Amino acid sequence: MASTPTTAPLNGVKLETVGELASAIRDDGDKADTTWSASVTWDEGFRSQAQIREFAPLTSDEPEGLGGDDTAPNPVEQLLGAFGNCLAVGYAANASAAGIEIRDLKIDVEGDLNLQTFLGLDGSGNAGYEGIRVKVHLDTDASDDAVAKLHETVAGTSPVGHTLSRPVPVEVELA
Amino acid sequence: MASTPTTAPLNGVKLETVGELASAIRDDGDKADTTWSASVTWDEGFRSQAQIREFAPLTSDEPEGLGGDDTAPNPVEQLLGAFGNCLAVGYAANASAAGIEIRDLKIDVEGDLNLQTFLGLDGSGNAGYEGIRVKVHLDTDASDDAVAKLHETVAGTSPVGHTLSRPVPVEVELA
Repeated sequence: MASTPTTAPLNGVKLETVGELASAIRDDGDKADTTWSASVTWDEGFRSQAQIREFAPLTSDEPEGLGGDDTAPNPVEQLLGAFGNCLAVGYAANASAAGIEIRDLKIDVEGDLNLQTFLGLDGSGNAGYEGIRVKVHLDTDASDDAVAKLHETVAGTSPVGHTLSRPVPVEVELA
Repeated sequence: MASTPTTAPLNGVKLETVGELASAIRDDGDKADTTWSASVTWDEGFRSQAQIREFAPLTSDEPEGLGGDDTAPNPVEQLLGAFGNCLAVGYAANASAAGIEIRDLKIDVEGDLNLQTFLGLDGSGNAGYEGIRVKVHLDTDASDDAVAKLHETVAGTSPVGHTLSRPVPVEVELA
């Protein structure tokens, strides 16, 4: 029996699938419109869990100093984690498309938040992050120019990054 | 031995701890300034994990149609989960402060996102959410007026909600 040579895709990214999706969207722009969802159930105190499709729920709590039981990351930490995870997808996808091998990738995200508004004290009126900083540690053999171009593309097309840096219309209604 | 009567706190929320924090911030405004962080490690393909303090990492992937292995929620779903979890904390805290018992609380979050910009196709240039909608299902004996007031407070002071609805300065740098 002849053996079939197989080639592992660069960075393990299935570029062919991404290309098929892009092609389908070029043929029918409506296919680019997606809706995502999460369903959160409150448990007790500051503990809750977010159910997303069939996956294990994302459990949430607050540190003890904020009145929680400190059993899980809190929501503003989860948000930073989501941003880093989003940038990781962007790096993997765009590096693979550019023929760049990623040996290692670590992304540190941090953000500053003033608690006064959340706590109902005098404040700026901004309960959210005042600024978010990301440091990307990319280990690769690619040239500095190629890495700089990759970085620019990733930072400029991140779905979570754009969501954070632009004002998103948010409606919160009682059902 | 005399038994000591104990009262479980309303909704399991440690209001005293929250009050102590608020009091400390009134005495020293600098105590309201907090910094949060997450550290993301890329695994392979579109899989990564966000480490937050000592907790089990938030694993991330993309659906198969987007080129992933579909082993975990994707980053834009995680973002919605974080928002719902944040609103749950807001409801628990403000309901308890107002003497409102929460019997049950479920929060459904969904958002619309156009994939064209992320995929490098022609698009609006917005890779992020174009709109996010939340439906809050609150089971309580409180009056409609009390619930409406509670809802207004929670929706207006959510750290993740403000982060989403306002433009946040975001810096992404190569280390």
